[in-house]
Amino acid sequence: MTLTALEKGRAHVAKMNPGLEETLSDRYDHLVPDMAESLIEWAYGRHYVRKGLDVKTRQLCTVAALTALGGQTGPQLKINIAHSLAVGVTDKELAEVIWQMSVYGGMPAAINGLNALLDVQAEQ
Amino acid sequence: MTLTALEKGRAHVAKMNPGLEETLSDRYDHLVPDMAESLIEWAYGRHYVRKGLDVKTRQLCTVAALTALGGQTGPQLKINIAHSLAVGVTDKELAEVIWQMSVYGGMPAAINGLNALLDVQAEQ
Amino acid sequence: MTLTALEKGRAHVAKMNPGLEETLSDRYDHLVPDMAESLIEWAYGRHYVRKGLDVKTRQLCTVAALTALGGQTGPQLKINIAHSLAVGVTDKELAEVIWQMSVYGGMPAAINGLNALLDVQAEQ
Amino acid sequence: MTLTALEKGRAHVAKMNPGLEETLSDRYDHLVPDMAESLIEWAYGRHYVRKGLDVKTRQLCTVAALTALGGQTGPQLKINIAHSLAVGVTDKELAEVIWQMSVYGGMPAAINGLNALLDVQAEQ
Amino acid sequence: MTLTALEKGRAHVAKMNPGLEETLSDRYDHLVPDMAESLIEWAYGRHYVRKGLDVKTRQLCTVAALTALGGQTGPQLKINIAHSLAVGVTDKELAEVIWQMSVYGGMPAAINGLNALLDVQAEQ
Amino acid sequence: MTLTALEKGRAHVAKMNPGLEETLSDRYDHLVPDMAESLIEWAYGRHYVRKGLDVKTRQLCTVAALTALGGQTGPQLKINIAHSLAVGVTDKELAEVIWQMSVYGGMPAAINGLNALLDVQAEQ
Repeated sequence: MTLTALEKGRAHVAKMNPGLEETLSDRYDHLVPDMAESLIEWAYGRHYVRKGLDVKTRQLCTVAALTALGGQTGPQLKINIAHSLAVGVTDKELAEVIWQMSVYGGMPAAINGLNALLDVQAEQ
Repeated sequence: MTLTALEKGRAHVAKMNPGLEETLSDRYDHLVPDMAESLIEWAYGRHYVRKGLDVKTRQLCTVAALTALGGQTGPQLKINIAHSLAVGVTDKELAEVIWQMSVYGGMPAAINGLNALLDVQAEQ
Repeated sequence: MTLTALEKGRAHVAKMNPGLEETLSDRYDHLVPDMAESLIEWAYGRHYVRKGLDVKTRQLCTVAALTALGGQTGPQLKINIAHSLAVGVTDKELAEVIWQMSVYGGMPAAINGLNALLDVQAEQ
Repeated sequence: MTLTALEKGRAHVAKMNPGLEETLSDRYDHLVPDMAESLIEWAYGRHYVRKGLDVKTRQLCTVAALTALGGQTGPQLKINIAHSLAVGVTDKELAEVIWQMSVYGGMPAAINGLNALLDVQAEQ
Repeated sequence: MTLTALEKGRAHVAKMNPGLEETLSDRYDHLVPDMAESLIEWAYGRHYVRKGLDVKTRQLCTVAALTALGGQTGPQLKINIAHSLAVGVTDKELAEVIWQMSVYGGMPAAINGLNALLDVQAEQ
Repeated sequence: MTLTALEKGRAHVAKMNPGLEETLSDRYDHLVPDMAESLIEWAYGRHYVRKGLDVKTRQLCTVAALTALGGQTGPQLKINIAHSLAVGVTDKELAEVIWQMSVYGGMPAAINGLNALLDVQAEQ
């Protein structure tokens, strides 16, 4: 039996951040009906579950991009640092990826990224 | 004997893109003295040669970030797609990373990134 | 008699956010003489009062752009959400526009935008 | 019978840009399997078909955001200008929205946006 | 007699890029009535003519910002490089400012900026 | 005897922000070995000490770029406002440069930049 993208996304999130859909739904669905379902389907069911690249590398690439994009994505960078640790990425690998972004996104972006990593470490 | 950052950067570039420093120097050093040397030292000698993360993952993370940052980094995205292939990253892995960026940088950034990959494939 | 751009801008602001010019002037004019007058003339007298598009659609387009541009424009996004409500845009329309930006500016931008809307609702 | 998001997205695209899924599939699916289907589901089936905001305003908001985001989204801006005209938005409304973005995204973004509109007019 | 912002802007442009308002008007005013007048008033009459900073430093700061913002502002970067040369800034100063942006906007932005300078030199 | 880039960078920082390398090292080097040394070498030893442009103009250009880039660079904007004051730039010059960025980076970026200047003034 083939799972839909939504079902695959839910299965992925269950392993990494159970309760994420409920949290999103409680916060946003009264504003945007189906927002939570739609996000799980798209981000997880259509991306992280894809074949061709392991999930640890996917998470590191997400952390790289969110670091380079800069402060607008600060909250999501912290969530994805936590998600990365949850799937087995090490603090060392995260620090290396973030620092490398100083070449491409500039020094401010990299320093803000390291601060996000320090914040997540302090919270855990 | 310890190598300086500049020497380490030169050794790294020699394996991946020999002639890069000369190309940069011919094009830019009359405008910005030492630009080529400075770029090799910083980007390669201070980043790609670091321990703690393999160079293939580093390249994928760079491709992720340049895709998410968008068109301003188009030429560099193509150079880094070529560098990624040169160190053993596959077209498949590149395509997966680029497409994943639609979640974080938006659909236009991801589509432009896929177009850059198609361009590099066509040129090779 | 023809009004100048500055006079038209002042008339527009009087209906939507009376006291805005004074607030800006008190805060910024000692640093940048004429900053408040200049902002009213440019943003309102040269843009919002223009013909060819109703002010509600103008406000929704501004909210769309500020959402997609991301966190740097957080304070201005909240001000423009409030301005939108003041000219008759509904919460529903605002939520729909903000969520649509997940396609173009990425998921983090859209989620930050929804949070801004929730903040404005909580403040009112 | 309830349509899935993918089915709703396909129905919407059929009216506005028939052949879009095939074009995307031919160009990208060998790199990223299911890319075309996934894009139609997400961008159109999960966004443009939503209730709460008419499609003309949705298109104008997209044009606003793509203008403000700037050059990286140049090709998509032109596509969305064409989509806007296809659903009944006028050139005048497009010009007004694009110009307004000079306040939020800066003058270069607005001028590039007007140039994109001129290009689309010349092509049609 | 006090000049209006528009009159001051026109006087400034007359020295640096005569014909600019007419060029803008011919290209854009049929789309956006008064666009040219409005741009001259805002960018030149409200900014470049201000006291407190000499025009050469203003131009260098504009070049710095357009470089850091990246490709979206490519055409405007080239225009401002030409404007900078017209008010006495040297090629050397421009090259130094552009290269410095590699620290803040990342290496791709700086290299694109140097390429813009080379293009302007080749055109002159 | 020729100084290395690292030595030149350290000499520059000693005059403007003594203790910066230690602060960075204490905070980041356990995550990213040699981060502090590498930043001093690159940002100061390879940029601010260069010939061809005085350090006050370099600082103003940095403030311009960080303002235009927007909120992601907020902390670094404040640091560079303080560095600018430390090398003799005036509050007036800073305010003028920041406000000018409303033309290129949009109004939100300029207002956030003025707020950063007000914050630094309040802290000193």
